[in-house]
Amino acid sequence: MKVDDLKALLARVQAAELTIEAALAELAELPVRDLGFARLDTHRELRTGAPEVVFGGGKTPEQLVAIVAALAERGGNVLATRVSEEAAAVVLAALPAAKWDKLSRVLLVEQQPLVDNGRGTVLVVCAGTSDLPVAEEAALTAQLFGSRVERIHDVGVAGIHRVLAERARLEAAEVIVVVAGMEGALPSVVKGLCSRPVIAVPTSVGYGASFGGLAALLGMLNACAAGITVVNIDNGYGAGFAAALMNRRRA
Amino acid sequence: MKVDDLKALLARVQAAELTIEAALAELAELPVRDLGFARLDTHRELRTGAPEVVFGGGKTPEQLVAIVAALAERGGNVLATRVSEEAAAVVLAALPAAKWDKLSRVLLVEQQPLVDNGRGTVLVVCAGTSDLPVAEEAALTAQLFGSRVERIHDVGVAGIHRVLAERARLEAAEVIVVVAGMEGALPSVVKGLCSRPVIAVPTSVGYGASFGGLAALLGMLNACAAGITVVNIDNGYGAGFAAALMNRRRA
Amino acid sequence: MKVDDLKALLARVQAAELTIEAALAELAELPVRDLGFARLDTHRELRTGAPEVVFGGGKTPEQLVAIVAALAERGGNVLATRVSEEAAAVVLAALPAAKWDKLSRVLLVEQQPLVDNGRGTVLVVCAGTSDLPVAEEAALTAQLFGSRVERIHDVGVAGIHRVLAERARLEAAEVIVVVAGMEGALPSVVKGLCSRPVIAVPTSVGYGASFGGLAALLGMLNACAAGITVVNIDNGYGAGFAAALMNRRRA
Amino acid sequence: MKVDDLKALLARVQAAELTIEAALAELAELPVRDLGFARLDTHRELRTGAPEVVFGGGKTPEQLVAIVAALAERGGNVLATRVSEEAAAVVLAALPAAKWDKLSRVLLVEQQPLVDNGRGTVLVVCAGTSDLPVAEEAALTAQLFGSRVERIHDVGVAGIHRVLAERARLEAAEVIVVVAGMEGALPSVVKGLCSRPVIAVPTSVGYGASFGGLAALLGMLNACAAGITVVNIDNGYGAGFAAALMNRRRA
Amino acid sequence: MKVDDLKALLARVQAAELTIEAALAELAELPVRDLGFARLDTHRELRTGAPEVVFGGGKTPEQLVAIVAALAERGGNVLATRVSEEAAAVVLAALPAAKWDKLSRVLLVEQQPLVDNGRGTVLVVCAGTSDLPVAEEAALTAQLFGSRVERIHDVGVAGIHRVLAERARLEAAEVIVVVAGMEGALPSVVKGLCSRPVIAVPTSVGYGASFGGLAALLGMLNACAAGITVVNIDNGYGAGFAAALMNRRRA
Amino acid sequence: MKVDDLKALLARVQAAELTIEAALAELAELPVRDLGFARLDTHRELRTGAPEVVFGGGKTPEQLVAIVAALAERGGNVLATRVSEEAAAVVLAALPAAKWDKLSRVLLVEQQPLVDNGRGTVLVVCAGTSDLPVAEEAALTAQLFGSRVERIHDVGVAGIHRVLAERARLEAAEVIVVVAGMEGALPSVVKGLCSRPVIAVPTSVGYGASFGGLAALLGMLNACAAGITVVNIDNGYGAGFAAALMNRRRA
Amino acid sequence: MKVDDLKALLARVQAAELTIEAALAELAELPVRDLGFARLDTHRELRTGAPEVVFGGGKTPEQLVAIVAALAERGGNVLATRVSEEAAAVVLAALPAAKWDKLSRVLLVEQQPLVDNGRGTVLVVCAGTSDLPVAEEAALTAQLFGSRVERIHDVGVAGIHRVLAERARLEAAEVIVVVAGMEGALPSVVKGLCSRPVIAVPTSVGYGASFGGLAALLGMLNACAAGITVVNIDNGYGAGFAAALMNRRRA
Amino acid sequence: MKVDDLKALLARVQAAELTIEAALAELAELPVRDLGFARLDTHRELRTGAPEVVFGGGKTPEQLVAIVAALAERGGNVLATRVSEEAAAVVLAALPAAKWDKLSRVLLVEQQPLVDNGRGTVLVVCAGTSDLPVAEEAALTAQLFGSRVERIHDVGVAGIHRVLAERARLEAAEVIVVVAGMEGALPSVVKGLCSRPVIAVPTSVGYGASFGGLAALLGMLNACAAGITVVNIDNGYGAGFAAALMNRRRA
Repeated sequence: MKVDDLKALLARVQAAELTIEAALAELAELPVRDLGFARLDTHRELRTGAPEVVFGGGKTPEQLVAIVAALAERGGNVLATRVSEEAAAVVLAALPAAKWDKLSRVLLVEQQPLVDNGRGTVLVVCAGTSDLPVAEEAALTAQLFGSRVERIHDVGVAGIHRVLAERARLEAAEVIVVVAGMEGALPSVVKGLCSRPVIAVPTSVGYGASFGGLAALLGMLNACAAGITVVNIDNGYGAGFAAALMNRRRA
Repeated sequence: MKVDDLKALLARVQAAELTIEAALAELAELPVRDLGFARLDTHRELRTGAPEVVFGGGKTPEQLVAIVAALAERGGNVLATRVSEEAAAVVLAALPAAKWDKLSRVLLVEQQPLVDNGRGTVLVVCAGTSDLPVAEEAALTAQLFGSRVERIHDVGVAGIHRVLAERARLEAAEVIVVVAGMEGALPSVVKGLCSRPVIAVPTSVGYGASFGGLAALLGMLNACAAGITVVNIDNGYGAGFAAALMNRRRA
Repeated sequence: MKVDDLKALLARVQAAELTIEAALAELAELPVRDLGFARLDTHRELRTGAPEVVFGGGKTPEQLVAIVAALAERGGNVLATRVSEEAAAVVLAALPAAKWDKLSRVLLVEQQPLVDNGRGTVLVVCAGTSDLPVAEEAALTAQLFGSRVERIHDVGVAGIHRVLAERARLEAAEVIVVVAGMEGALPSVVKGLCSRPVIAVPTSVGYGASFGGLAALLGMLNACAAGITVVNIDNGYGAGFAAALMNRRRA
Repeated sequence: MKVDDLKALLARVQAAELTIEAALAELAELPVRDLGFARLDTHRELRTGAPEVVFGGGKTPEQLVAIVAALAERGGNVLATRVSEEAAAVVLAALPAAKWDKLSRVLLVEQQPLVDNGRGTVLVVCAGTSDLPVAEEAALTAQLFGSRVERIHDVGVAGIHRVLAERARLEAAEVIVVVAGMEGALPSVVKGLCSRPVIAVPTSVGYGASFGGLAALLGMLNACAAGITVVNIDNGYGAGFAAALMNRRRA
Repeated sequence: MKVDDLKALLARVQAAELTIEAALAELAELPVRDLGFARLDTHRELRTGAPEVVFGGGKTPEQLVAIVAALAERGGNVLATRVSEEAAAVVLAALPAAKWDKLSRVLLVEQQPLVDNGRGTVLVVCAGTSDLPVAEEAALTAQLFGSRVERIHDVGVAGIHRVLAERARLEAAEVIVVVAGMEGALPSVVKGLCSRPVIAVPTSVGYGASFGGLAALLGMLNACAAGITVVNIDNGYGAGFAAALMNRRRA
Repeated sequence: MKVDDLKALLARVQAAELTIEAALAELAELPVRDLGFARLDTHRELRTGAPEVVFGGGKTPEQLVAIVAALAERGGNVLATRVSEEAAAVVLAALPAAKWDKLSRVLLVEQQPLVDNGRGTVLVVCAGTSDLPVAEEAALTAQLFGSRVERIHDVGVAGIHRVLAERARLEAAEVIVVVAGMEGALPSVVKGLCSRPVIAVPTSVGYGASFGGLAALLGMLNACAAGITVVNIDNGYGAGFAAALMNRRRA
Repeated sequence: MKVDDLKALLARVQAAELTIEAALAELAELPVRDLGFARLDTHRELRTGAPEVVFGGGKTPEQLVAIVAALAERGGNVLATRVSEEAAAVVLAALPAAKWDKLSRVLLVEQQPLVDNGRGTVLVVCAGTSDLPVAEEAALTAQLFGSRVERIHDVGVAGIHRVLAERARLEAAEVIVVVAGMEGALPSVVKGLCSRPVIAVPTSVGYGASFGGLAALLGMLNACAAGITVVNIDNGYGAGFAAALMNRRRA
Repeated sequence: MKVDDLKALLARVQAAELTIEAALAELAELPVRDLGFARLDTHRELRTGAPEVVFGGGKTPEQLVAIVAALAERGGNVLATRVSEEAAAVVLAALPAAKWDKLSRVLLVEQQPLVDNGRGTVLVVCAGTSDLPVAEEAALTAQLFGSRVERIHDVGVAGIHRVLAERARLEAAEVIVVVAGMEGALPSVVKGLCSRPVIAVPTSVGYGASFGGLAALLGMLNACAAGITVVNIDNGYGAGFAAALMNRRRA
């Protein structure tokens, strides 16, 4: 039942061609989608805070071009994550408006100015240089979703004084994203030094018994400092998006 | 070096008994704790947002009484989690001001009025009745740390319409805590229906291949809806505290 | 918006007190639950094929009595699984109509005659005597949901000829549930001998590297005979219910 | 002992050249295979419902050609799964009757018309575009084994309304196959909306703590909605075959 | 079809009441069990080398008494493993012929003299005193199945010279069973010193990252000395039985 | 201390140049290797039953040539396992006496006639064609170490009658090696049909939740039929060598 | 061959009753144990640095009394770990010289004065009060093996300044043992602040995804600061012993 | 606050422009980094014993050149681990002073003479030739950090006499590093023969159930000989560095 059908039904009630009981019966048969949910789709961004984002991992360059182009046609901004250099070359050739960030492998089509809808800033803290790609994916994501972003890089636990020296910036942030591999201890240290919510991102950086990031993931889940929540291994996008949500001003 | 020592040093500088260079050299030897960190301790609540909370699991009733009494003496509120009925009986006999909640096994000594320092409310959503103890631990924790809390219970994925019916309340909350065991699918469904940040709490409810909550934990970490962050299995306290942090108004 | 509200709205359209456009706008605001989903609840059994079943594991006798009594009050049949002997004694004292099966630890309140709504029979095959409780949970569940049930017990892989001797009965069944612990090889053998769909139930029977049923579960998932699907470890209820669904005559 | 030998034996009994006791003794020595099981082989399809299917994974193009050609010679239909593009090219060059489906990597030699031996339809539901290859493997398999197949694609849990909108089609199917990676929550949602048996197929789609499909597998095994059974990770063939069995009209 | 039925059939052929073709048809319908396999059951010991052995773990004393008594009635020897002290007391009260070994928790009903059917001896080597119960279960099992057994106790890897001193006895044995927990290194050392086949039994002795015997199991499976085969964790019975089989003289 | 040193010492005792006490003191200092263990090395084959075998996996062709050539120079037979086609080509060019078996990837330098030192035969049974490389590695190894070998191929559990038909050959073997991937159920079925010791070899054949052979390994360790021992995943060499040891006639 | 036999042999050489060649032949037959290894046993403490220590876990009080008494009879010091309160009561009743430490569950029989054979001190650092039993087991063990021990308690990562304040004591120690559960991050922080070798001890303290200490173990193995080595979960004894070895002055 | 600021403050105190109380207040605001920690950085080598070492794994040749060149510019020695042949070629072209070791894949820039700051020697013991790369990484690391290093290669557990023969060298070392894959049993054997501290390094050498070194890691953590500590899988650098620390003479 489309809106036109509904209009017609109401018109028949109005015209007394349909009793109220018969109208009720017809309405009870309304497929959910046509009434309640058709509206949802157009309101999706508002509702979930997220435009459709493309996970580039495992997609062929051709698939990526098709999907990104289709989304870009609507006029909004498009974000694709984990886009390889090869795929990016194909997409950029087809979509000159697209930009690709080599470090984070993020591809962006910025067609609308980025707004700042945040209460404060999202601070992305990174343990080692090998964790930078994930950290930058988080940072670019948070930016796209309306947050000002600051970065602190290369402050591992083994050089604890480098973390301590940044205590003021930690406290000043609205939300902190901490990215670390290996043992994943940095979020605990950061949270022990400030009162802000911390989103911890384990990375697959490490070897041997790091088991592809499992050690860091378990370390973060068992963090002895409260106020830390965790996302999936290497999930910079998820952390950046969650941080932007927490930082967003309510309407 | 105590403050008095520092005062004495400055007095000697003032009295020209000590050159500036010699004073600098002495200051360079200052143990960190005496200057920089003595202050930290008194400012700990401000810094991390958390008064000392007692993890009651695995402590004897006698240990609990001693620790809770010592903390209560300072005049603030005290929260102890995972306090068994037996331990609670001993603590309540010794500390008449304490209250124990049977469902969540939380013990509270409320000596200061709870303030509302939140931007909005924390909504605690719970999949099944067996998940209630963890959900209530989260709710009481968020309350103690200054958040108004609402609750939606028993809205598992298998009865998806019950979740849908609460869409308005989901959107109205500032932060949502979703507690679920077994397969842990509820946070994805909730996040798919609203734009608020979701903290997912896996519980050890289940059997067989739930492996003590591992299935729910993995499910939540792999949630296909972005904007979800996860805490440890059965960690209601951690979720409640993180939610209160995210909801807290900045000074 | 209740049905009365909807009626009133239609009446105002009929009475021309409300334009069609205004009516459409009001309808667009209809909370989903009030129209679409209120009906769902009363149709739940029809829709999912399942009355509310009680998982007795981890519930106190008092909780069980309360829940079972509430469900029994509606006049239908009630099934509770994993009810310990102690809990059963309490429930039976309170609800004389209830019966408890010691082997499967299933508690039944049969207030309506069991119907046979099946196309054929559900055959429950069991590898060893230690697997019997799970097998019987499956059998009683399938029966309650309208299937005639047959049983073949104690036909482990190590005595393969006992399985072979039952080839005719295997083929005659509509659906076969195969319950086995340890290495979990029986479903493959059974499926290799007949053309019927097989539901495999791993049990936690075993020791050492059986890891609480994990070995059987993995064995069944990797079964070299196609046509086997698997449920959770020890999940007799799930297997019995799925078997009854597959066996059920369509209206 | 061939049938001729048996005939000869009986002839000697008839001719009184052999006493009944001596005949019994000879019969007791009958190798099982020659009497009981020779027949089984020719009846294999009837018995297990499955013609020999070729698992193409890990086979060289030459091996594949040899096996598929040998099976095709018998005149029936042949199905090979997980056939890479390279291997398919070699097989198609050698067997012009073969067809290869790029998406599902399924290779088919259709020499007999497909029959519809089903009671109803098999509905294949797919969470995301990355799950499509597995879903299509399931669909093509079910088709080859005599089921009409319908498909619903791209209805992940994060967009729950898209699932809801298909409620009627879910209920209309005889059996539903649900294919999902990452957290594997879709089968629970689908089962919560209809009364049909659901076969859940976890896929290896995901990253980080999805551990190659383990998260989805555990999620599905722990599904809170009853009536769901599970097959191995990425096992589209197994799901399609099981679905066809469940849907098949009995002779 | 019983033997009598078969006799009758042959008689009817002899009497020309049944044509050979009709007799063939009837024979083709012979249920497998009645011809080929009825005989198997009485020959089971011969065929598999094992009388029925009772796994006592998880059985109630009453169940044990019933099973052991039933088996003992046939007049042969009966072996029950993992019989607790409580269960043993009940069985011994009911079956005065039974004996229970406290160390290994093995219960024996010896009604026939033990024969020595071995080519040589089975040597059971044990790493530590905590591994003794499993070692003794292996030793008693091998004895019951016809092997002379020798024992070497408490020769862990940390005191390597104790192993070296027994080199002559290692070489003299027909088969060696090596029982070890913790890291499970003893089988490699033993095998490195002699030319005999070694059966390795990991035990659940250990703590922390021994994970209930998993460390020892993996160590033994990865043993760098060839000629070692492994049984399940704590499976003394399986090792003793396999050793007796390897040691058994062929008829 | 070399043998010459020892001779010299004894000569000095004989010549009364050294008191017995002084000689004793010198002997007490004897490095273990020079007396006791120098002999061991030359007796190594006798002691452990194994000439040095080369594990080809992960070695470069150059390394392989060097090692195999060095061992071949001693005039005995040499066995190298897991030799890739590329590596084999290099070795064969350098060592014309070497032969390489494509199926099992075994490289042999047969410089001495193979002896038959067995009591009977080693029977290698294989579940599927993908398991053949591992099975053939076992077969060739057993042969090289002095056993006559027979083979039964492609008798998976799903076609149980094919196993049954080979019952006589199973019983006739001295030792049986059973090679199977996926669920690993074949050893149980084989052991249930005969009285011979069975060595089970799990293979990494499978996908999804087979986890590289873990499912088969666990299945075999938990086999419900006693008399089965297990080697590492894909360890055909280990199984063949252990089988040859069990089959070897004692001197 | 005992020493007397060896003496006799030499005497016969001296007396020319035995040629040097014959003497050599007899010596070649010397069982290893009688010559080389008899001595080893009396030198065991010197060689491995450890008197026999009793692992009390899983031993009955009677077994413990017997073992400890036997060891104490030799006049040296005896250490038993993981002695429960019940077992300790029995041992202390039987052996009045024994002392039991409630916190660490260590039982000591000190019959010889403790020596200080260390180069410096062993410093035991402990993250939380729940880790104290393991820390104290380490401390008492190091003391018994000749090290002066210092302790720093309750300096978790969440209160990083407490660690920082102890920097001088960390640097002053010869070896540092760091005991921590949950995420196991403390060793990295400690090692980042000083130049001393650190032995990390994961404890089973934690819940949920700490998996009995696995999270802490993995964290420590993946520590980003070099110079850390790890022992088994809860293995205070192992850490204390290793620390004492590292601290021991060479003779 | 820089040192100049501090000087200025003291000057104002001296000049009586600032009261002692006001100076105290200003000092209390001192950022930690500017006073206490600025000094730490210059003292880092002293403090932790480690110059910055480069983990080459996963870095591009360009990144490696940049990092190594920057570190080399300071004039000290530089160590890079896990440098592939390709990367080494690029670095050596750019930095002629660099040397690359093919076996261990270690790259060194030796600009300062290596000192011997050890109490004794570090002995690196290696089980098999495949473990050599890790062993050599350990040896070169220990050397660079000031230890004399000795090596014993290819002394696996299966040839136990080869280990025994080296007993004197084991005891003579100050610290022993034992490198082993597969089952990881060598450290136990080594520790059972000497009184020196042992650092065990599991390697990923092995296949099947070695699970990338997990079997060796668990074996070493569960070693039955005390005095063993463990580092991460394949972590030769970590073991070599820890050994050098333990061996280092205190100032």
